Amino acid sequence: MPGGTPHPHGLHRVITPAGVLPQPAEVIDNRMVCQANELLIEVGALNVDAASFTQVKALVGEDPQAIAAHMQGIVAARGKLHNPVTGSGGMLIGRVKEIGPDFPNADGLQVGDRIATLVSLSLTPLQIHRVAAVHLAAHQLEVEGEAILFASGLYARLPADMDERLALAVLDVAGAPAQTARLVRPGMRVVVMGGAGKAGLLSLYAAKQAAGAAGQVIGLAPFAAECAEMRACDWIDTVLHADARDAVAVLHAVTQATGGAMADVVINCVNVPDTEMASILAVREGGTVCFFSMATSFTAAALGAEGVGKDATLLIGNGYARGHADFALGLLRQSAGLRAIFQRRYAGDKVPA
Amino acid sequence: MPGGTPHPHGLHRVITPAGVLPQPAEVIDNRMVCQANELLIEVGALNVDAASFTQVKALVGEDPQAIAAHMQGIVAARGKLHNPVTGSGGMLIGRVKEIGPDFPNADGLQVGDRIATLVSLSLTPLQIHRVAAVHLAAHQLEVEGEAILFASGLYARLPADMDERLALAVLDVAGAPAQTARLVRPGMRVVVMGGAGKAGLLSLYAAKQAAGAAGQVIGLAPFAAECAEMRACDWIDTVLHADARDAVAVLHAVTQATGGAMADVVINCVNVPDTEMASILAVREGGTVCFFSMATSFTAAALGAEGVGKDATLLIGNGYARGHADFALGLLRQSAGLRAIFQRRYAGDKVPA
Repeated sequence: MPGGTPHPHGLHRVITPAGVLPQPAEVIDNRMVCQANELLIEVGALNVDAASFTQVKALVGEDPQAIAAHMQGIVAARGKLHNPVTGSGGMLIGRVKEIGPDFPNADGLQVGDRIATLVSLSLTPLQIHRVAAVHLAAHQLEVEGEAILFASGLYARLPADMDERLALAVLDVAGAPAQTARLVRPGMRVVVMGGAGKAGLLSLYAAKQAAGAAGQVIGLAPFAAECAEMRACDWIDTVLHADARDAVAVLHAVTQATGGAMADVVINCVNVPDTEMASILAVREGGTVCFFSMATSFTAAALGAEGVGKDATLLIGNGYARGHADFALGLLRQSAGLRAIFQRRYAGDKVPA
Repeated sequence: MPGGTPHPHGLHRVITPAGVLPQPAEVIDNRMVCQANELLIEVGALNVDAASFTQVKALVGEDPQAIAAHMQGIVAARGKLHNPVTGSGGMLIGRVKEIGPDFPNADGLQVGDRIATLVSLSLTPLQIHRVAAVHLAAHQLEVEGEAILFASGLYARLPADMDERLALAVLDVAGAPAQTARLVRPGMRVVVMGGAGKAGLLSLYAAKQAAGAAGQVIGLAPFAAECAEMRACDWIDTVLHADARDAVAVLHAVTQATGGAMADVVINCVNVPDTEMASILAVREGGTVCFFSMATSFTAAALGAEGVGKDATLLIGNGYARGHADFALGLLRQSAGLRAIFQRRYAGDKVPA
């Protein structure tokens, strides 16, 4: 049995170092015994954070079995899918297996209900018994396994009108479009870097809804194919073909696209490091940059703004915003075009492991 | 002569990797030849970023000569005082030696004027010819050297009514109190973690000015002596003695101090890693955490908030805010008590190197 009194934040499952919370912990207790305030889940799929999946793929190659083995190794060592290089995790989909009698927010939940957890895999006790498939493009693993949700953990019931892997892909990045909607006002110019990824496309859609016809919504991506895909989206006003790591190229492209006004809001959804400066150079004085990329360097962002004398608001993209799951799923229901892209990308390919 | 056309952001001085800006660069060209749009400075003192100074001190010990040698080694390798472990720099004080004919914002500046640069040493071309003294408590090096300010670089003329090292200590962290003043509204509860440091004390003062008599300004620090110093400050309403790395202890302390309401705004000025979670747990749902610590981990903050389901605004503390230098120096002019602490700490001790 996991040690100590069950704690809402999962302190009773931290092994090393002692006294920290489960996310920063190196190792947590992943024994699948449901404590009084916990939820035990039979896991069906893992949606790995893009920065983590990309790092593992770069390390072991595009071989599904090698990727599966590496992910299993992380879980075996740490008790959670917490990538030690990127620091990030992802999320999961599964079926409720046991509800602890003191689990809060059960809200009519029944054993057997299908749910997605809305907290990171970087803090979720997990066991992977078997990997059934690895979906390279979707950064997803189909698995047989078990996981624990703490009392403070959030979850969403899966919608009945959507493919489960599609819902998972959306829920994993639901914070980005929800925060974008809060930041953007009518008439604003908005640049979404990494605009062709899933967080990027959802954020672009949310940005256009909030900015309206008078606004200018700009998607930026490094590959021609991504740019072509964005040009086919009628909610994206301008597409820029540039590498977000090239701060100087982005500065020139955004200057030209906005007639020198620069962006009121920049949303960074890029999955590679060294894109902080481009984001800061793209925003106007007094504007806001929101970093959702898990590859963001805190010091590069803070010192970068100071280094170029840019008085802008710099936000750490919070993965959670009240109502973000319903908000993000709602965007797919509103736009057949957006849903078609997501269906094709994240619920279409199947590569056996 | 440094290569290429002089660029406002100093691109012409980047050596490796090619095509990046000077801050993320590994090595920059520190030849002291003033280009047409640059300013050449005769350096008198370096104020090292607290996270950087603490890291070097932990590595080489409290021996001033060893610290001086390590700092000189960084500059010899990189062309700038850009700590490769912490990613941070600091700032400098000096005298104008040469003004390039195309340097913007010269604004009546004369050769011989004493200035402080307001951009980070992590991107400033620097040569240290000699270290004259190391001030351990103040994180300052008195040096003979030269530095270059790019066209986009900011500087402040040094005030005539203040000791120069005192002014430098204040200017180095001027962003923190200025951003605090923007975030705090009358009646708010504000927690400043690392409250006894220089950024912390200035932020506490700015917070009390903005929160007013109906507000509650709370300083938190890990050492009894720091807490005693804060208790003597009449602008601090509540002093909490806790280690910011202990998220659970901070949660309990702030819960008790605020009667369970938690903080509207948390300002993190701590100089050690692993304090993100305590900051997030201390803020109320819907509140704001502003991270000024250069030891902040982006992923720990982003995933930490998600992990505990906290819908809070998370800010990367921007070192620059319009007017921040005058604002911060003004606080010392308003409060004899605040000024006395700074005078004693940052302009009092002299330890020969």
